[in-house]
Amino acid sequence: MTISEFIKTNLHTDEVLPFETPVETFKKNSEISSKGKIERFAYFIHSGIVQAAIDSQGEEKIIDFFFPNQFFSSYTSFLTQCPSDVIISAVTNCEVEVIDLHKLQAAYQTSLVCNQLGRYAIEKVYIKRIEREKSFLTKNAPEKYLELITYHPEIVELMPVKKVAKYLGIHPESLSRIRKTVAHA
Amino acid sequence: MTISEFIKTNLHTDEVLPFETPVETFKKNSEISSKGKIERFAYFIHSGIVQAAIDSQGEEKIIDFFFPNQFFSSYTSFLTQCPSDVIISAVTNCEVEVIDLHKLQAAYQTSLVCNQLGRYAIEKVYIKRIEREKSFLTKNAPEKYLELITYHPEIVELMPVKKVAKYLGIHPESLSRIRKTVAHA
Repeated sequence: MTISEFIKTNLHTDEVLPFETPVETFKKNSEISSKGKIERFAYFIHSGIVQAAIDSQGEEKIIDFFFPNQFFSSYTSFLTQCPSDVIISAVTNCEVEVIDLHKLQAAYQTSLVCNQLGRYAIEKVYIKRIEREKSFLTKNAPEKYLELITYHPEIVELMPVKKVAKYLGIHPESLSRIRKTVAHA
Repeated sequence: MTISEFIKTNLHTDEVLPFETPVETFKKNSEISSKGKIERFAYFIHSGIVQAAIDSQGEEKIIDFFFPNQFFSSYTSFLTQCPSDVIISAVTNCEVEVIDLHKLQAAYQTSLVCNQLGRYAIEKVYIKRIEREKSFLTKNAPEKYLELITYHPEIVELMPVKKVAKYLGIHPESLSRIRKTVAHA
């Protein structure tokens, strides 16, 4: 799906973005958005999987995974104009459509569809983050895993155990034990 | 500040919302948005302080505080049409302006200013949540407290220690010790 198709499907309008959104590809394991830089782009995934991670005293903590037909960006860095503390990288080979955030920001002054899309996209990531925060505050490791396989089976199916463990904030060995228990339940 | 003044100041337009936003008052400690209900409103604070909390096995965990000129709502409940698991209540007597989310949603189809405001408001709460999540993932208790007094001194100044502790996810006695250390540093 392209951004234009995404707009048609989710915002029910034939309007399109008033600027070009070039297609780019990223090789598996390459960095798409680096730590320490101010974000200039948002991306829409045509194919592939992307992760966002932070570095906590030398330890990688995965804070999000993104799949086809989802937007991603170190958007808080762009909004606050502070250097990003998130590393966004391609988990697999990826094809993405690129939005220049300065063009988007300028279009926000006058374009209904840009504001609709910006609002819609951030509503979705906001819901995802809130769900994750509540989960971390209220659930233990097995409950977090069960929630993940219920609501985001694609993460468990498509990611290596090590990455799922980093995403859940659980030691990989604990996650393996939990997976065995769940499989035999 | 009213919502119209907020729009003028932050979105740099004289446009106003295309529906009424009545003013309501809430007494200290009263519930504004209840657990188990689907959210129908968003609120803009004229005066007073509001908290959002979740119940984790009988224990209240405060996930957010809101101050004058900020919007609040159990917005994910409205967006997902799932019962809210957040309890939003007045920490002090409050005066708020009330947005009917169904009217807002309808206006999103055609109104530029509604989409601009919706996008802007959710961008702000998104940044707040991301900051909080990163803080919980990467910082210990004293670091979390130092971050709070640096970026949100109003919370430390205006809230009782018990509420600040619940917000930081720290035992109140630990927080008292940290405060003493910081005060003598």
